[in-house]
Amino acid sequence: MKITLSQLSFHTGNFAENTSKIISAIQEAELLGSDIIVFSELATCGYPARDFLVFDDFINQALESITSIAKHCTKIAAIVGSPRVNNLSKGKALFNAAYFLCNGEIAHITDKTLLPNYDIFDEYRYFEPNKNFEIIAYKEFKIALTICEDLWNIVENPIYPTSPMDELIKQEPDFIINIAASPYSKTQIAERQKVLQSNALKYQIPVFYVNHIGAQTHLIFDGGSCVVEKNGAIIHELAYFKEDTKSFEIIKNSESIDVIVANPSKSRERNQLKDIENALILGIKQYFQKLGFKQAILGLSGGIDSALVCYLACKALGNENVWAILMPSQFSSQHSVDDSVKLVQNLQIKHDIIPIENTFQSFLNSLHEFYKDTPFGLAEENLQSRTRGVILMGLANKFGHILLNTSNKSELAVGYGTLYGDMCGGLSVIGDLYKTEIYALCEYINKDKEIIPSNILSKAPSAELRPDQKDSDSLPPYEVLDALLNNYIEEEMGPTQIIQAGFEPNLVQKILRMVNMNEWKRWQAPPVLRLSKKAFGPGRRVPISGKYLS
Amino acid sequence: MKITLSQLSFHTGNFAENTSKIISAIQEAELLGSDIIVFSELATCGYPARDFLVFDDFINQALESITSIAKHCTKIAAIVGSPRVNNLSKGKALFNAAYFLCNGEIAHITDKTLLPNYDIFDEYRYFEPNKNFEIIAYKEFKIALTICEDLWNIVENPIYPTSPMDELIKQEPDFIINIAASPYSKTQIAERQKVLQSNALKYQIPVFYVNHIGAQTHLIFDGGSCVVEKNGAIIHELAYFKEDTKSFEIIKNSESIDVIVANPSKSRERNQLKDIENALILGIKQYFQKLGFKQAILGLSGGIDSALVCYLACKALGNENVWAILMPSQFSSQHSVDDSVKLVQNLQIKHDIIPIENTFQSFLNSLHEFYKDTPFGLAEENLQSRTRGVILMGLANKFGHILLNTSNKSELAVGYGTLYGDMCGGLSVIGDLYKTEIYALCEYINKDKEIIPSNILSKAPSAELRPDQKDSDSLPPYEVLDALLNNYIEEEMGPTQIIQAGFEPNLVQKILRMVNMNEWKRWQAPPVLRLSKKAFGPGRRVPISGKYLS
Repeated sequence: MKITLSQLSFHTGNFAENTSKIISAIQEAELLGSDIIVFSELATCGYPARDFLVFDDFINQALESITSIAKHCTKIAAIVGSPRVNNLSKGKALFNAAYFLCNGEIAHITDKTLLPNYDIFDEYRYFEPNKNFEIIAYKEFKIALTICEDLWNIVENPIYPTSPMDELIKQEPDFIINIAASPYSKTQIAERQKVLQSNALKYQIPVFYVNHIGAQTHLIFDGGSCVVEKNGAIIHELAYFKEDTKSFEIIKNSESIDVIVANPSKSRERNQLKDIENALILGIKQYFQKLGFKQAILGLSGGIDSALVCYLACKALGNENVWAILMPSQFSSQHSVDDSVKLVQNLQIKHDIIPIENTFQSFLNSLHEFYKDTPFGLAEENLQSRTRGVILMGLANKFGHILLNTSNKSELAVGYGTLYGDMCGGLSVIGDLYKTEIYALCEYINKDKEIIPSNILSKAPSAELRPDQKDSDSLPPYEVLDALLNNYIEEEMGPTQIIQAGFEPNLVQKILRMVNMNEWKRWQAPPVLRLSKKAFGPGRRVPISGKYLS
Repeated sequence: MKITLSQLSFHTGNFAENTSKIISAIQEAELLGSDIIVFSELATCGYPARDFLVFDDFINQALESITSIAKHCTKIAAIVGSPRVNNLSKGKALFNAAYFLCNGEIAHITDKTLLPNYDIFDEYRYFEPNKNFEIIAYKEFKIALTICEDLWNIVENPIYPTSPMDELIKQEPDFIINIAASPYSKTQIAERQKVLQSNALKYQIPVFYVNHIGAQTHLIFDGGSCVVEKNGAIIHELAYFKEDTKSFEIIKNSESIDVIVANPSKSRERNQLKDIENALILGIKQYFQKLGFKQAILGLSGGIDSALVCYLACKALGNENVWAILMPSQFSSQHSVDDSVKLVQNLQIKHDIIPIENTFQSFLNSLHEFYKDTPFGLAEENLQSRTRGVILMGLANKFGHILLNTSNKSELAVGYGTLYGDMCGGLSVIGDLYKTEIYALCEYINKDKEIIPSNILSKAPSAELRPDQKDSDSLPPYEVLDALLNNYIEEEMGPTQIIQAGFEPNLVQKILRMVNMNEWKRWQAPPVLRLSKKAFGPGRRVPISGKYLS
């Protein structure tokens, strides 16, 4: 039997486009002699569809999509993820289903059992967990069909009381199919492969895995669909960060199932920086595509953050679609402009210089009556940042560009940014990268030739909002700050544990306090492309008016 | 036996303050001869604690709080809500528990069974559902202790497969105690009382109900704790929108339980507008208190929205703590200033006038090279709004005020507001009130004397960002718009249903498209005080880059 794994990019709510892509893939697989083709989780409606799922109309469209796809499954079977109505008198309104389409109709439906409801996941908000376990007989094979999280309860202290495979294995399936929507993070690829390998080894059958690829606002899905043999070996990985399709021959022997693949692409050591770069490029690209925009605008400060975002935008959108604006003030050093000009020359993009001194002065004049007896401080710094924000939005609005935000995770964490100023933008590109990670990524990007001017990498970071300002005036060195923040945010360690890990108690108290007190700013931050296991945004839900560690 | 219901305001994460309040209430109740005192759900840590719950340190502090409270329960028992660690090898890390404290120790623990995970609720993110059902014997009584949602599965198509009371009733309890954190909405008080009455009638025993009171960022808890007799009659309601404590005598007869209360406050017809006013005042007041701020600033446009917010701020913070800024431009009508001045005179608050023409012109000069061949449009309108936003934030930052946002729900819905302009602010006060509701509330406020100048209520709404602009130029009449929006947002009706309800198909398509296309703006909106069953914010989770109805 020939099985085809089809790793496609879907657009949430765009049923016409998604359905058409699925049908085309079915027709191509049929032409190639495939017996069954597998698509990712909730393929018809896209993942995550979030509160679109509450609309009857939305669910009806998903069912219409399945009905029309089924008609194309006469000579080939297909497995397609789609939401479906729970017709029982009890429980939540929907199931997260995998449809098995065959002979032109719906031959079988498997619902998802384990519903992730942590981090960015809200599946228990919408779906009732499955309680029926039945394998699918197709041709000479018995298939254990599972959906994403269904395979993930394979740890020592499981968060779910049951594991679907423990039930399905009793019916002696020949192999596992898992359809997924597993978003990228720096640690996710390794963890995901370990989970799939553990399942193959535990149940002693191969696993066919199809993941979603594409970006949905803040979430990036990396793909990396694969086949794992029963000995735990990954015999083929599909592409990462792009669409891909691959077919495999499955042969049933007396003792076992053999999987044969032409030109296998074996699992290899991954380069994390390359993955991050690809993830961010995909994230920008699909955000623009899906919203129907082509052009980006951003402010270049002469610093490393905006330089990196500028480079990534060029890779995602083409350098002809990126417009860089330099907005020097009386506090800007000459190298800020020079370094930015060098960058735009390297990238060959359009740029303009719009000094902000006059408008900043106009604000100061308007506020003079109130400011006159006070020292120059944060309020005056914020005025400059907000003047720049207004100029950038003024150009974005006038010419139909999306403003890219250039805040990094370190500054978002401690509130070292101006709300409605440098925190403006439709998408936060690097808001899930600590400053130290940004340096590492820029060094990687520069590995073959200098794209980001070396002076940008070597000078001390500064917001340049008052004379001779340096980040280090008010923050500890980024190596210390970022390690501390990582313990608190990603590792979810409390103050005691962080102190035990070797950080100075007063510093721990100060930084945790800064993080918690600045939640009100992050509430209003743009969506942040997620790269870590705990990004700011919907995956981290913290009270603003709480009093914990603040 | 004497039972005391203690309806208190708690501050999320502020264990010292919450614990101290609980202990004081226990001591007072003991002095009054009470046998048992009942506090609301998750009283030690506040509700909702959201992702603070992931920190071991946070959970440890909650347990320390319980331990220290227990020491004060020697002559009196207490029921206190608090999170606790799940010590089983499977399941989520925590339970949402009610501690029964007696004889100076933890005598019993009841965990929550039904975990709401819809709208603003995320309880399944943190908690494992309870599966053990045991009543509590205390003095001569048997108590069925339940937690909030545990009583809410009493409908025809329940979303949970089981109801805890169906189990507990088998052990023949004498009455139900329910500790809750049930947030206010316009429809919630009636629905909540119906649920409590249905339980009393179904199980034929009295219900003692203690709800949380206070505001947690966007959520307002109204209190309204009460006692329901087994015949469904509410014999006493505690206060709404403020702390309250009340004791009741429970007498066991051969056939039934009698509840006796001195000076009963019977359930009465509520005034919804009065409730909304009180809810918003409480929301503002506690947002400031809990963040340690005293003073508010806001921009007065001469329109009804900012006038209402200004009035509410005065009621919440005192008129000496509210600073109104008038920022006319060349497009502002004279009545905008006159009406605003009349309002600040009525409210007796400080105000200043800061014209924006010069700074707006300075922006136009900076952008002239780019704007020169384009018509005056949305970009120029946004510039004015953002200039005002920068001025307000410049004063807020300089003098330690919180800027109050004055956007209404109608404009948030259709995107008729400027991000980083009039959408600025730390808290959206009326972002869950449609424009028509705002008129009704202002009329109510003016019922005894003219507080909001009548000209503000009678003139046509306008953003005044270009000559002779009116809201009605680009939007349908608010009566139509708001009714349509309510069907889509609160009632979650899809386009077909809304058209069936009598709205014009083209208008439905246009408005739904506007709502969905403006999700990117609402993502960056301030927290909105929740008044309806579906407010913008964490209770409504919609993709930005989706393609549904857009």
